[in-house]
Amino acid sequence: METIPLGEALRRVPAEAVTSPHPLPGFARSTVDGYAVRAADTYGVSEGLPGYLTVTGAVLMGTEPDITMAPGTAVAMPTGGALPPGADAVVMIEYTAEVMPGTIEVVRPVAPGEGVVRADEDARAGQQIIPSGRPLRPQDLGMLAAAGVTSVSVYARPVVTIFATGDEVVPPGTGRLRPGQVRDATSAALAALVADAGGVPVLGGIIPDDPAALEKALRAALPKSDMLVISAGSSVGARDETAGVVARLGEPGIWCHGLAIKPGKPTLLAECASVPGEPGVPVIGLPGNPRSALVVFRLTGVPLVRLVGGCTALPPEPSTRARLARDLASATGRLDVVQVKVGDGVATPVFGPSALLSVLTDADGYIVIPEEATGLDAGSEVDVILYA
Amino acid sequence: METIPLGEALRRVPAEAVTSPHPLPGFARSTVDGYAVRAADTYGVSEGLPGYLTVTGAVLMGTEPDITMAPGTAVAMPTGGALPPGADAVVMIEYTAEVMPGTIEVVRPVAPGEGVVRADEDARAGQQIIPSGRPLRPQDLGMLAAAGVTSVSVYARPVVTIFATGDEVVPPGTGRLRPGQVRDATSAALAALVADAGGVPVLGGIIPDDPAALEKALRAALPKSDMLVISAGSSVGARDETAGVVARLGEPGIWCHGLAIKPGKPTLLAECASVPGEPGVPVIGLPGNPRSALVVFRLTGVPLVRLVGGCTALPPEPSTRARLARDLASATGRLDVVQVKVGDGVATPVFGPSALLSVLTDADGYIVIPEEATGLDAGSEVDVILYA
Repeated sequence: METIPLGEALRRVPAEAVTSPHPLPGFARSTVDGYAVRAADTYGVSEGLPGYLTVTGAVLMGTEPDITMAPGTAVAMPTGGALPPGADAVVMIEYTAEVMPGTIEVVRPVAPGEGVVRADEDARAGQQIIPSGRPLRPQDLGMLAAAGVTSVSVYARPVVTIFATGDEVVPPGTGRLRPGQVRDATSAALAALVADAGGVPVLGGIIPDDPAALEKALRAALPKSDMLVISAGSSVGARDETAGVVARLGEPGIWCHGLAIKPGKPTLLAECASVPGEPGVPVIGLPGNPRSALVVFRLTGVPLVRLVGGCTALPPEPSTRARLARDLASATGRLDVVQVKVGDGVATPVFGPSALLSVLTDADGYIVIPEEATGLDAGSEVDVILYA
Repeated sequence: METIPLGEALRRVPAEAVTSPHPLPGFARSTVDGYAVRAADTYGVSEGLPGYLTVTGAVLMGTEPDITMAPGTAVAMPTGGALPPGADAVVMIEYTAEVMPGTIEVVRPVAPGEGVVRADEDARAGQQIIPSGRPLRPQDLGMLAAAGVTSVSVYARPVVTIFATGDEVVPPGTGRLRPGQVRDATSAALAALVADAGGVPVLGGIIPDDPAALEKALRAALPKSDMLVISAGSSVGARDETAGVVARLGEPGIWCHGLAIKPGKPTLLAECASVPGEPGVPVIGLPGNPRSALVVFRLTGVPLVRLVGGCTALPPEPSTRARLARDLASATGRLDVVQVKVGDGVATPVFGPSALLSVLTDADGYIVIPEEATGLDAGSEVDVILYA
């Protein structure tokens, strides 16, 4: 938890509900340009039978009115001005005319409260104006500013340490590769997803396929992290080694190894405490293929980062309804995530081996085929989650 | 335009398309654990009539294979390993068995290319991998990293200077207000919307209802800004003064004054050049009510900030389909923006005078009733744009 100024609070998650210290707007306020009146003085007036009121003054913006309304009087009001004591409504200027200096006619009656916001209509003193757990939106910052709340207590951003593993993986800055080597694409993309979800990504670097080196790196990062993410080697051996290291890392250990999802089956979810008996931090072992890793992290890691960051109201994701361009097969008992391009209300699947990152960069979004489905027919209506 | 490192490029807008300097992944790569083979050596094999191949070695991750495939041989492959010269497919380990040391049986044939991604299947050398004008998404950063592109040329973030005006407006930090005074809620919320849209918000402060002071402030900000935003005083007089100042500010001047939208009618759109003959910067004069100002800015200002920032592909907005909880009236010839709460597929309008900011903080999103509609019936399906 930390207290930060309003100007830095966009998308941060309030750790406690915020109440207004004052009634808002704080004074009865005109919502129109016109004349403050006692509503009763206008009852029964009409175009054919106007009422006449004596103008006893004018309210200036930002100043306290020094006029008290007597029966049969009116006070000129700008939109947003403070109502003089005794006035209970404002007649729009359109329904008045100055018939001689100091006298107006009124051709339409007003009810008490018309043309006015009450002193506590936007918020009562002590009323909750912002809930905890929901990331702050632009209008929330406006409301806090209106209430004079210029700093806000928020959850600390969760620190998420990201490791790449694999003897074949080299830093993105490596110019020429030897055959067999690939640049680390996953860490940069994961860091961006973590930042999007409100976390602080820390790049832990590339660890070779060596359980001792991985264990050392994870042990060093664990006490400094709120979450660990490892994109594991692609081969069966490398994946098994990662699971072995995570299992030794701390209690309570591995929750599950293997998810019924495609792509992304070889995913590892664990919770490891650096101090025995203490609550652990989530550890996610992702598939080695960048595309599989990003698909799974979006579905499991992003909500987890938000949760660890105190977010109880997940922000909505962009999505659209579209018709499927072709039949899609899917095995039952498995969630299928299919990348699609979207245009003219049609979702066209983008296929390719899960090793291809270009499938993700070509896609506008993805559809999820639920576990129980055996596939989807061409022309079906599908929900596409769009990449923002 | 500026060149920035990949780690800072999320959501930034590429000023030019990026092409891959290399073929990607750069070498033919196994997508499974198994054995590299010459596909022809497996033709016709089956469970009943397996083929037999001599294992001549194993490929290690990240290393260049030093074995050339002879007919009738196989090489052990990890997922992601580089194919040895002469191999054109990989048989999954599941379809093989080591019948004696150095010999495997193969029970399923493979076609050339099976179990393999080609050396340029993710991208050919020179192929466009990232378009210009579309804000960079997490997977785009991954693709750039994979291609070894560690910095990217992006449009500069547009500088948007935001002014509040009005004698009644005081800074958010003001503890006790006099009746008639209100804190500046609009600037903080506008700054957040500008930041969301990829701009750099600059708070120009609060200007009293004095045309000379406003003109001085706008003239000083104009050469340093890519866009000016003024939340104008609420009263007719204050609004007219703002329009007068903007009209004098520079050519070509006011595009339109007044939009057929509710709330938000008294909106001013202009383009003003600080140097005569030069292209001008957009100037938006918003209504004085914070709620009206934010509704209009979301519809007009946010896309304009993106456009000025070089964004040609607007990112998708979260939205949902819902049934309307009650009838909504709307005047034809006017766009109505109605705030709603959404739950269980039902959109419930949140009403209140446009002076109330709490209507926006209570809302989950909004619906737009088009100009030609006279209203919407309860139970109608509506598209709700959700606040993220």
